[in-house]
Amino acid sequence: MKIQFSKDTLQKAINALAKVSQNKTSSNLPGAIYITTKNGKVEMQANDYEIGIRITIDANIIEEGTIVLSTRYFQEWVRKTPTDTITLESNAETKQLLLSSESSQFNLITMNPDDFNLVEQIQDENHIDVDGEQFKQMIDLTNYAAASEEDRPIFTGALLEGEDKNLTMVATDTHRMAVKKITLDTPMPVAMRILIPTKTLAEVSRLLPTDQPTVVRIIWNRTNVVFLFDTIYLFSRLIEGQYPDYEKVIPSQFDSSAILNCRDFAGAVDRVSLLAKDASYNFIRYDWDEKEVTLSTQNAEIGMAKEEVLCEFKGTPFTISFNGRYIGDILRHSSGDRIHLYLKQNGPVVIRQDDNPNYTYVVTPVRTN
Amino acid sequence: MKIQFSKDTLQKAINALAKVSQNKTSSNLPGAIYITTKNGKVEMQANDYEIGIRITIDANIIEEGTIVLSTRYFQEWVRKTPTDTITLESNAETKQLLLSSESSQFNLITMNPDDFNLVEQIQDENHIDVDGEQFKQMIDLTNYAAASEEDRPIFTGALLEGEDKNLTMVATDTHRMAVKKITLDTPMPVAMRILIPTKTLAEVSRLLPTDQPTVVRIIWNRTNVVFLFDTIYLFSRLIEGQYPDYEKVIPSQFDSSAILNCRDFAGAVDRVSLLAKDASYNFIRYDWDEKEVTLSTQNAEIGMAKEEVLCEFKGTPFTISFNGRYIGDILRHSSGDRIHLYLKQNGPVVIRQDDNPNYTYVVTPVRTN
Repeated sequence: MKIQFSKDTLQKAINALAKVSQNKTSSNLPGAIYITTKNGKVEMQANDYEIGIRITIDANIIEEGTIVLSTRYFQEWVRKTPTDTITLESNAETKQLLLSSESSQFNLITMNPDDFNLVEQIQDENHIDVDGEQFKQMIDLTNYAAASEEDRPIFTGALLEGEDKNLTMVATDTHRMAVKKITLDTPMPVAMRILIPTKTLAEVSRLLPTDQPTVVRIIWNRTNVVFLFDTIYLFSRLIEGQYPDYEKVIPSQFDSSAILNCRDFAGAVDRVSLLAKDASYNFIRYDWDEKEVTLSTQNAEIGMAKEEVLCEFKGTPFTISFNGRYIGDILRHSSGDRIHLYLKQNGPVVIRQDDNPNYTYVVTPVRTN
Repeated sequence: MKIQFSKDTLQKAINALAKVSQNKTSSNLPGAIYITTKNGKVEMQANDYEIGIRITIDANIIEEGTIVLSTRYFQEWVRKTPTDTITLESNAETKQLLLSSESSQFNLITMNPDDFNLVEQIQDENHIDVDGEQFKQMIDLTNYAAASEEDRPIFTGALLEGEDKNLTMVATDTHRMAVKKITLDTPMPVAMRILIPTKTLAEVSRLLPTDQPTVVRIIWNRTNVVFLFDTIYLFSRLIEGQYPDYEKVIPSQFDSSAILNCRDFAGAVDRVSLLAKDASYNFIRYDWDEKEVTLSTQNAEIGMAKEEVLCEFKGTPFTISFNGRYIGDILRHSSGDRIHLYLKQNGPVVIRQDDNPNYTYVVTPVRTN
């Protein structure tokens, strides 16, 4: 095999594959990238069994072939090499790959391509097309609310549910939940309800181009999903299990509501959290009054923090406490001037924003005496 | 005590003190900042027994007093508070300090000022004045060559030696050495030879203003040193022990010399180091020839790296090996186009730069078969 690459194209492809190729969970040649020539193009793959990525790029193919090599040295050497063109040339006898550019050479011992498990093809599929920017926003506005790896598997995923022209993404760790809905241009061929690992969606969000309009084709069956965009084919297992009925979690009756300036509110939560996060439950007390809300927390060993934030409040003044991190999280994912809170004595708060329509965040209060 | 501060002044003072105040080695109220009013100014201190810093700043003193409080909350709260003015008000009865700004309040429990060991005054001192920018450069060009904390104490410091108008700073870990000399405007009152912890010099370098001309007054006696600049008084213990005669380590006879382009050389070392640093001795082989030098390294399990760099070489072609990190370090501290190497078969290399006069770096070769 002998191929000449543009450095930028090669580096972009390696960076797209690097994370998956280096996942330690894989028993499939961890830390390896597979490269082959196919129909006049170069195909590169990384696979960790949960996620597999395949990228097809243009390059000058001088001699066809297939090799598997160590991602780490490949990635670092290409990054540190300041030339426009990089040549890969394999030697079947020595099983070495020569990376070269002008005055620089790197010989890497290669692995056996037969040991590499190729990224799977998806079978019996349905598909929909979604605008890339909208899909990236869906991921970014919901996935942070999911549970971390250690918890119950279904809550480490995000639900992607669709019917007709409506597509909804939901993530929750059971204490708070984020829901984002978008409207598709054309109705879906069949209804969809799949649970995708947030790890997969993080890769999709990372790889989606932000400098050009992109369409993401989502192809799914009962056990797997594929995201197809740009030069990328990303295959992922789905999470099995029964996801709760998220609609039921969103309350529809409220005692009161408040409108706050997003930046002022975020600053106040951030400062009170300094102290709250060192206390046992990280809770912040909210005293709602007609024209302002007072946020406070105390810790016998350190001291007391208090913030006043102006608000347009409707309802009867009352007191409620929330985990500082959960409110901080939604404020970090907020944009625009105004944020709306829909409140209920001892009940979950629903948070919405002017600048992010069809986006709902729900947080359960902390019970205090 | 009640004081109104400009936020920027207060934040700058806390940032200057934070590192020393949070050193875990201290038994002197670790994590604390001392604040007192004195002659119409505010004095703030941090002290970890090895290094003590005192800063004097302007503020609106409404009521005099002295307090000691936790650096961490103080620093974070001030940083996160976006107002121009911050008020500190202590309550002698509750032993709490109230930090406040517009709508934001933070009550912090304070510590007993009697438990805080004040930064020492230096006794029986000599002093010299040095240009701040030149002194910062001396530190930055030498201190990285010192040994890390775990090694022999004298090599964790830098030697500062002066006589007449000559001031020299030296640091070595016994495998490589960096020496920087500067010329003072006026002769020194007495000769100087002190060994300063690189930890202390790192603080001086960090705190020296880069946006205005500054004079550093260095005051020393047999056991301690003080750096006086801007609004800062920085006290430090000296390291005891006999520092080797560094002049003897710099060879004066060479077999050959080479001039290389600094950026090309740095790139080549960086790429070969990718592989060399994973090998047992991190060594890179240099094959010097009339018009170019070939850098190479190999590792039976990974592969082989090779770089060619153009050079103006004088002498007889030969081969020598150096630790990749030691050559990489000097290249990261190099500026300008040209770097000069003075070489000797099996002997240390001396490295000098056009753009940094009176700067010498010496590296002992690695013995290979």
